[in-house]
Parts: sequence; C-alpha cells; structure tokens
Amino acid sequence: MSINRSASTLVDVPRGLAGVVVTDTEIGDVRGTEGFYHYRQYSAVDLARTRGFEDVWHLLAYGELPDAERRAAFLAETAAARRLPAEVRAALPAVAAASRASGPLAGARTALSLLGAAQGFRPVYDIDAGRRRADAVAACAAVPTLLTALYRLGRGQEPVEPRDDLSYAANYLYMVTGEEPDERRARAVEQYLISTIDHGFNASTFTARVIASTGADVAACLVGALGALSGPLHGGAPSRALDTLDAIGTPDRIDGWIRERVLAGDRIMGFGHAIYRTEDPRSRMLREIAEGFGGPRVSFAVEVERRVEAILAELKPGRELHTNVEFYAGVVMELCGLPREMFTPTFAAARVVGWSANVLEQAADSKIIRPVARYVGPPPPAAVPAMG
Amino acid sequence: MSINRSASTLVDVPRGLAGVVVTDTEIGDVRGTEGFYHYRQYSAVDLARTRGFEDVWHLLAYGELPDAERRAAFLAETAAARRLPAEVRAALPAVAAASRASGPLAGARTALSLLGAAQGFRPVYDIDAGRRRADAVAACAAVPTLLTALYRLGRGQEPVEPRDDLSYAANYLYMVTGEEPDERRARAVEQYLISTIDHGFNASTFTARVIASTGADVAACLVGALGALSGPLHGGAPSRALDTLDAIGTPDRIDGWIRERVLAGDRIMGFGHAIYRTEDPRSRMLREIAEGFGGPRVSFAVEVERRVEAILAELKPGRELHTNVEFYAGVVMELCGLPREMFTPTFAAARVVGWSANVLEQAADSKIIRPVARYVGPPPPAAVPAMG
Repeated sequence: MSINRSASTLVDVPRGLAGVVVTDTEIGDVRGTEGFYHYRQYSAVDLARTRGFEDVWHLLAYGELPDAERRAAFLAETAAARRLPAEVRAALPAVAAASRASGPLAGARTALSLLGAAQGFRPVYDIDAGRRRADAVAACAAVPTLLTALYRLGRGQEPVEPRDDLSYAANYLYMVTGEEPDERRARAVEQYLISTIDHGFNASTFTARVIASTGADVAACLVGALGALSGPLHGGAPSRALDTLDAIGTPDRIDGWIRERVLAGDRIMGFGHAIYRTEDPRSRMLREIAEGFGGPRVSFAVEVERRVEAILAELKPGRELHTNVEFYAGVVMELCGLPREMFTPTFAAARVVGWSANVLEQAADSKIIRPVARYVGPPPPAAVPAMG
Repeated sequence: MSINRSASTLVDVPRGLAGVVVTDTEIGDVRGTEGFYHYRQYSAVDLARTRGFEDVWHLLAYGELPDAERRAAFLAETAAARRLPAEVRAALPAVAAASRASGPLAGARTALSLLGAAQGFRPVYDIDAGRRRADAVAACAAVPTLLTALYRLGRGQEPVEPRDDLSYAANYLYMVTGEEPDERRARAVEQYLISTIDHGFNASTFTARVIASTGADVAACLVGALGALSGPLHGGAPSRALDTLDAIGTPDRIDGWIRERVLAGDRIMGFGHAIYRTEDPRSRMLREIAEGFGGPRVSFAVEVERRVEAILAELKPGRELHTNVEFYAGVVMELCGLPREMFTPTFAAARVVGWSANVLEQAADSKIIRPVARYVGPPPPAAVPAMG
C-alpha cells in the first residue's frame, strides 16, 4: 500500500476508462465484432444449450465444470442455502414496506446487505479462499429467495418457501408464482439465466471488483454491484422492449411506427448494443427459445425484429443495429409467466453469480484499485473568508 | 454509449490504476509530499479550524461557503432531515439484530440502503441537479441517526431521537450517549469530522463515482462506498492505534515494545500513510486538539509518537514514517466519549458528505466508467464436455 503519487506520474487515459485494462481475468470475455462471448474456455451459449445453471455456476466459482459427484454435492449445498436465516425473514416485510417508493433493486440491495450481515460474512482478505467461496455461494443461493419474497410481500402475498428438490431456475419460478413450473418454462428461464451470468467487464462487475480490492466482505461487493446495475445506463430494462411491442400493437402498424421513430432519431428499445457490432449471440438463442413456444406474440416479435432491421438498413445504411439481449429476453420471460417488474431482478439473480466469480478472482489479488482525479478547480490555498 | 472495443485499442496502465486519471474534479485534492490537502480552494485544516461542519458540507455540496442567510437555511434543512421516516425507524431493530454477527458498517450499509428506498430516491440521470442534491443532503443528514440508533439498539438501548437545536457534531455525540455534550467535546468532534469529509480519490470515493456513472440513485452510490470503506485495506480502524497504546501500557515500556516491533518488521498501527511523505496535516491538528484536553492519556500518546519517530529514524533511516490520521483521531474520539466500535462509523458520518459531493459531480457527467479486463485463461471455444 505504498503509492507515491506526484503530478509527474499521472497517466492520462480515455474518458470513462474505455479500453483501459484494469486487470487480467480468467473468467471470460466478449468479442463484440465476432458476436461471441465465453465463460472460462467455453462458449456461453453452448453452455446455456447443454448445461444446467448450477453446472455453469460451478464453472464460474471453481474454474471447472463439475463431474457427477461434484454436481450432486453442489446441488445439495446450493439448495440448502436457499433458506433464509430467521432474522432476515423476519425483517423482509419491513424492507418490502420501506421499498415501495423505489424500484425492486433498491429492496434487493437492502435485503442482500442484511443477509450478508446476518451470515457474518468476513472481509475477503481476512479469510481463506474456501471461506470466501462459501460466502459467495451462500449469497447467490439466497438471492432468488430474497427477490421473490420482496416481490410477493410488495403485493400483499406471503413469500413462498424455497424447495430444495427443484433446480435453481425452476425453484425461482416456483417462488415467484407459487406454482411448480412446467419443464419447458423452467428450462427456458434456466437458459436465459445461464446466458446472463456474465458479460465482460461491465460497470457492475467493475464495481464489485473495486470494493473487493479493499478487502470488504462478499455482501459489500455484491450490494455495490446491485446498485450499479440499477443505473439506467447499465441495467437497462428488458421490459422496455415489450413496451415497444405493446406500443406498436398490431403487425399493420409496424412500418409506420418504426419509420417515425427512426426518422425522429429516437432510440428503439431492444435494439443496439454498446459492444456487439453483429447479432447478439444471446438474442439469437433467446429467439430460438421463443420460437419453440410459438404463438401470436412470438410471431409479432419476430416480425417487428425483421422490419426494424430492414428499415434501419434502408434509412441508416452501415449501422449494424440488431436486437440486443433485452428484446427476446423480455419475450421469453413473459412466455414463462414472469411479471415485468421481475425482469431486472431476474437478470440480477443470474448476474450475481458472475459478480461473485469476479469478487473471488479479485480477492486472490491484494492490490487496491485506486485511480486518481485531476484537480481543476480554483487554486488553493485561498484564505477562508470570515463567517458571513 | 458506443464503445467499440477491440484488442488494438486496449490501454495498459499501472496495476490497481495507480496514478491513472479517471476524471477531472473541482472537489479537492491531496498533495502528499507537501502534507497538504484541500476542499475546493481552501485548506481542509483551515476550514476545520475556523468553520462549522455544516459550512464545509455546504461548500462541498454547493461549491461555496454559505453566507449568513444560506447558513440558516441549510442548518434548518439538514436538521429537519435528521429524523427518519417511520418505516425506517420501524425496521431498525430488525437490522440491528441481523447485524450482530458483523461489523457496524454492515448494519449501516443496510440501513442507508433502506433509507434511500424509503425516501424514493430516483436514478441521478432521471432527475435534475436540485433533486439530486436534495437526495444527497437527506441521506447525509440521516446517517448519524442511523449509525447511533443501530449502535444503541445493538446494546439493548432505545435510540435517542435527534435534536434540531444542536449542531451536526453535537447532535451526533448526543445521539450516541443520550447526553448533551459540552462545547469543547462537541467542537473537537466537529473538527475531526470536518477534517475527514474528503481526502482525494480514495477507493470508496471511486466506488461511489463508478456507481453514479451508471445513473443509479444516490443511496446506491453511498451504500457501495460504505461497502468499500469497510474493507481492511481502506477504512482502517482508528481503534487500532489505541490498541497500540494499550498494548504498550506504560511509558517505561515504549522503547522495548517499539524496537521489538520495528526489528520484527511489523507494521505499527497509527503510523505511515499511502500518500503522505511528511507529517499528515490531520494528525497535526488532532494532536493540538488532544493537547488542549491534556491529561496522562494524551501525554502518553505524544510520548509514544515522539519515541516511535526517533526509533524509526534510527533503525529505518530515510523512511518518512509519521503518525497518520488514525493515531490522534482515536485519542480525540476517546477523549470525547466515543466508544471504539463507533470510531469507524464516526469516520463514515463525515466521509458520506465527501462521497455525496463526488456523486453530484459525477452525475453532471454522463459517461459510464467501464474499463476492461484482459482475458488470460485457456483459449475459447473449447467443446463443452458431455455431462459427467
């Protein structure tokens, strides 16, 4: 912790640290021009197509996919950790009541902070790697329980106790609705969740790592990340893409609605991504899942996508604007019975596993992340004026 | 929000972003080699010597010291905001109970998150500068109430309701102890608080700005910062310096104790700072305040400081190791009747004002802070193995 700062050692970089390499990682990456992203050495979409959520969670947390024996142990460990400590359960009605004026992520932020405190999470630099991982797994396993309990309490319903005989995804849907989901819906949500665990070094992931670099406990890191995710420039809102579908209404109105927006220079929600310059691989997978369900809503979404891309190619040639993950994620979540206000929390229920992997990786380092700011105000020291 | 990342645009920088300029600021800076730091254009120590906490808070929040009329209005605004919303008060016993297993900052993190949710704080990018500042002021004003209520609840005592006829500092002491402090103690704590509001671009301040850069609400930013502060590499522990005094015990044991530690290569708590290469200006001011109180404890602390510096100069010549802010901050807080477990929360009660100023400054920008990580794991895509 000996940083000798002086003006001569300041390093100027692009605004917002764009392209600045803050760390090495073995967790994954996004290749925007290829439309490809990966967890460890595996294509994330391949994992979503072939594996269960807990397998991929294990891959992120331990660096490798589990064999049959490890899988059984990890399923048991994570299922048991779904149950909340009694003092957290007892506090949730008050958290839900106090969070009514704000978004669901503010409630989740509070509840996750409470959970970490109740579990006695220790600073990551004060504990060994095994204990850190146990804290991270405990936090992730409890997040769906917290999110769904807050959702139900906010509607005047009793929380649904988690079941340990269901998969992470099926249990999540069960705790939202109170009914055991059919296999197709559970699997669709599971594939969405897997595809959302991690996605390069986004702002919430970076937040988690900055906090971890101070040695703070796992909950402090994840709560900070949840806060970053709640920012409109980051977390987005998968429900906005559905709002677009609702606003268009019927197939005959597509062209007029889209042309008007594009000519006015408005952004069309569900289209365009900061990194992908080609089709978003998550979008492609989720469209296929949606088409597996079929029905008029899916046909309409596919038609809107087709027409938006055609009109953009005509009016804005050269701009590679495709559907982003929000577009079909919203369609799939709607098909699976998730209410719109749970779309971003559902995203968080997956991403918390990615944040946790990043916290564990950062904790294995011991270097605090601390850049500098350049003072550009009036030069000090000015005399402090007498009291007015 | 159009960042086109490719390998060719990656920028390599020092580890932990040391010396990397992430933003311009008009809030303040630290000049480590000069032993000087400032808020806006004023020496922070000069401000602490001549002004009240609310004056300096106003300087940070609005960019200027208040005149008499503004001061009166700001005192009234901040005093009124000390009272907690009913639903937050109602939830605090549960938060205190659930936080028993963890440090006081974990409870504070939860309570501040709850407060922001209850106040209906909105994303900073969705509201104007006035509303943002109002949210920030409301959060800061309530932090002492939250911290002291959690402290008292944790000891089985009733929280003390805030009084709006006391200064920020006096009311803080009052809410901890339940007794109105004498003027000297109130002023000593006030000067400590002023000197602690901000101190360059530390990890918690950076955390607050990263979260703000996503557009998240003020509470999300401050809660993340509190999490970073709780890390052992950052927040430190002013109580550790007192632990050093206790371990030494009596003046005759100073030399033996210190020599043993220095020769063993141990760090001596309360000495050394990441940035200052000369006397920490906060330490100098706090020593003077302590000497104003006088008494054997203060004489002992001054003697320990004198002997540590002499022994370090003898055994480690050329190493500029002086007392840091923790050393006399602990002494002063002890003199003022603050219990050791409230030392770091007291630090947070001041620093939250600095974080808030940084959040407001960041929110006036609209560029997300998002660096990158370099993937260094096994090359993808590897075939996903069949289920084990």
